[in-house]
Amino acid sequence: MAAPIPLSDAERLAWLRLARSENVGPVTFRHLLRRFGSAEAALGALAELARRGGRERPLAVCPAAAAERELAGLGRLGARLIALPDPHYPANLAALEDAPPLIAALGDPALLAGRAVALVGARNASANGRLMAETMARELGELGWVVVSGLARGIDSAAHRGALASGTIAVLAGGIDKPYPPESEPLYRAIAERGLVLAEMPLGRVPQARHFPRRNRIVSGLSLGTVVIEAALQSGSLITARLAGEQGREVMAVPGSPLDPRCRGANQLIRQGATLVESAADVAEALAGPGGEPRAAPPRAALSAAPADLYEPFDPTDESPRSLVESRLGASPVAVDELLRQCQLSPPFLRMTLLELELAGRLQWHPGNRVSLLAPGAAHPD
Amino acid sequence: MAAPIPLSDAERLAWLRLARSENVGPVTFRHLLRRFGSAEAALGALAELARRGGRERPLAVCPAAAAERELAGLGRLGARLIALPDPHYPANLAALEDAPPLIAALGDPALLAGRAVALVGARNASANGRLMAETMARELGELGWVVVSGLARGIDSAAHRGALASGTIAVLAGGIDKPYPPESEPLYRAIAERGLVLAEMPLGRVPQARHFPRRNRIVSGLSLGTVVIEAALQSGSLITARLAGEQGREVMAVPGSPLDPRCRGANQLIRQGATLVESAADVAEALAGPGGEPRAAPPRAALSAAPADLYEPFDPTDESPRSLVESRLGASPVAVDELLRQCQLSPPFLRMTLLELELAGRLQWHPGNRVSLLAPGAAHPD
Repeated sequence: MAAPIPLSDAERLAWLRLARSENVGPVTFRHLLRRFGSAEAALGALAELARRGGRERPLAVCPAAAAERELAGLGRLGARLIALPDPHYPANLAALEDAPPLIAALGDPALLAGRAVALVGARNASANGRLMAETMARELGELGWVVVSGLARGIDSAAHRGALASGTIAVLAGGIDKPYPPESEPLYRAIAERGLVLAEMPLGRVPQARHFPRRNRIVSGLSLGTVVIEAALQSGSLITARLAGEQGREVMAVPGSPLDPRCRGANQLIRQGATLVESAADVAEALAGPGGEPRAAPPRAALSAAPADLYEPFDPTDESPRSLVESRLGASPVAVDELLRQCQLSPPFLRMTLLELELAGRLQWHPGNRVSLLAPGAAHPD
Repeated sequence: MAAPIPLSDAERLAWLRLARSENVGPVTFRHLLRRFGSAEAALGALAELARRGGRERPLAVCPAAAAERELAGLGRLGARLIALPDPHYPANLAALEDAPPLIAALGDPALLAGRAVALVGARNASANGRLMAETMARELGELGWVVVSGLARGIDSAAHRGALASGTIAVLAGGIDKPYPPESEPLYRAIAERGLVLAEMPLGRVPQARHFPRRNRIVSGLSLGTVVIEAALQSGSLITARLAGEQGREVMAVPGSPLDPRCRGANQLIRQGATLVESAADVAEALAGPGGEPRAAPPRAALSAAPADLYEPFDPTDESPRSLVESRLGASPVAVDELLRQCQLSPPFLRMTLLELELAGRLQWHPGNRVSLLAPGAAHPD
């Protein structure tokens, strides 16, 4: 795509309303923008699309007044909203298919232009683990890296502290005014002052368990690579590492004694192919491109309006192909290409049907352009 | 080669004399046996070969009486000598080009028939490292593995202790009656009683620094794989790991915190491709063949008399080709094939010339059929 063009104030308001409307996640947002060309046009179509997707209650479209209240609240905090087309929007994050269309930022947005690396790990980290995280973060800062983490207890906090002087980004799971856990509040204030705090969720949203994996994709997505320091098997840090791998970023891990359960996850990552790192120099080396310089950011995911034929007109009153698509969907993700092959429908029709199911809260997107049906009553992933 | 045939008593005495003669290392021993067909014949030729190789003092050939004294001494200890052709000689070790022609054994030789794995590591190991070594050794024993190590302080001793009940082999750097370090003597006695002690060096030989790498090749050579638990950078354990790799055996390492210098070597091994292991089950899995069963022992290295043309007659009085070979040799190892190509000599002539230089104490063999000249005055690697 061409270089991004910043949004006008009116466009920004429409983007915020669309992003805050019910069942509009980042992928759906992108599909709507491609289909309708603008957030304003998508807002006008939302209710009808959801109805056609099988929704009975009307879809809650975010009113303009609510979006204006959020913008005003952000302004009072000293925070700003950065949209995908804005020049400040970080290039690494823009490369993701599920990049947040808008992200709230509190602090120094210049850090978004730096080359970033994520340091994550156990909340109940050992003294050694914390020392490793703080030292590695400080040394990465001295080498010119921006250190990204999630403000959690343990490794995350130690990494932020180590990089406070050089530049660190904390990504929150809830709204930009809701740091978690409570004892991280002083660190949150320090980062807002000297570094940068980011949040995808609306102002005032208290973080819930399901928000954390979403937050983790931003931590890894902002970064050229993710370093795991002390992580138990089946821990959240391993989710961040998996996301980094799926995003095509470097996955690195600091090894530890197998006698310490807090190290088993990091060791498992190494066994599975993550790069073993012991120091900031190792991390910098792992992230170096062919010439020894840090790698360039990956290319932005397409955002602008698609070719004219992407969503061709079709007869929206014909219900039979729509039920055919639904019958081929289930709880296990299936590739959209495979659906196309099995249903023998035109790509525009299939895309529109999936968009309607998304807005009805019945469809979930997965990495690799795969989709699954959500069980009735399952919480939509916000 | 055909199945080995045990030596007669006279042959055993000649083997021992040849092995104990000056400048006859395991590779030279093998070359002599191939050239002369028997140890007895080689003994008769030694002095003249060394003289032709440029030696001025006469070569010290081991007298029969000295060899008989050693055999008697071993008998008093309850030890025995196992020769390459003996049925007890361990198959993994026999696969090495530099397998000891004879090895003294004190304890239960039936352990030599088991499938073996080496556990080695830091002498100044941490409490955690010792616990890991002892636990892994015990569990490997329960899985049917014989645990091999070097009786050193720290990891080695912990591994022997863990496997004392199931079966462990200690390989000494000096003579079979010279355990090292002194405080390992009780463990040495326990292993001699319940396990097996091995030594390549003559009875009564006090171990010296240069003996340890030679011993390490036996530790790794007896084993299908070597596990390194806590090893500093540039430590002896890394030498054992390198030898295991050169021998085509599996190299495994237990990771540890980069903040502990005792773990840096093990972590480095993993980075270089060693298999990360955290438990006995991991080790057993790494050593499993395609069907899940432990791998078979590698094939024995050729020992018996070579084809008739291997050492053809040639004019031993012609000195000019010999000085050509010497001129192409230096302190850096060079492949014998490359020497052949550069010198344009017949293979039998080159082999004989190298054998003479070996016996004169002027040649050193390296892995990969490479040779170098020893600097005048350098200690011969005996």
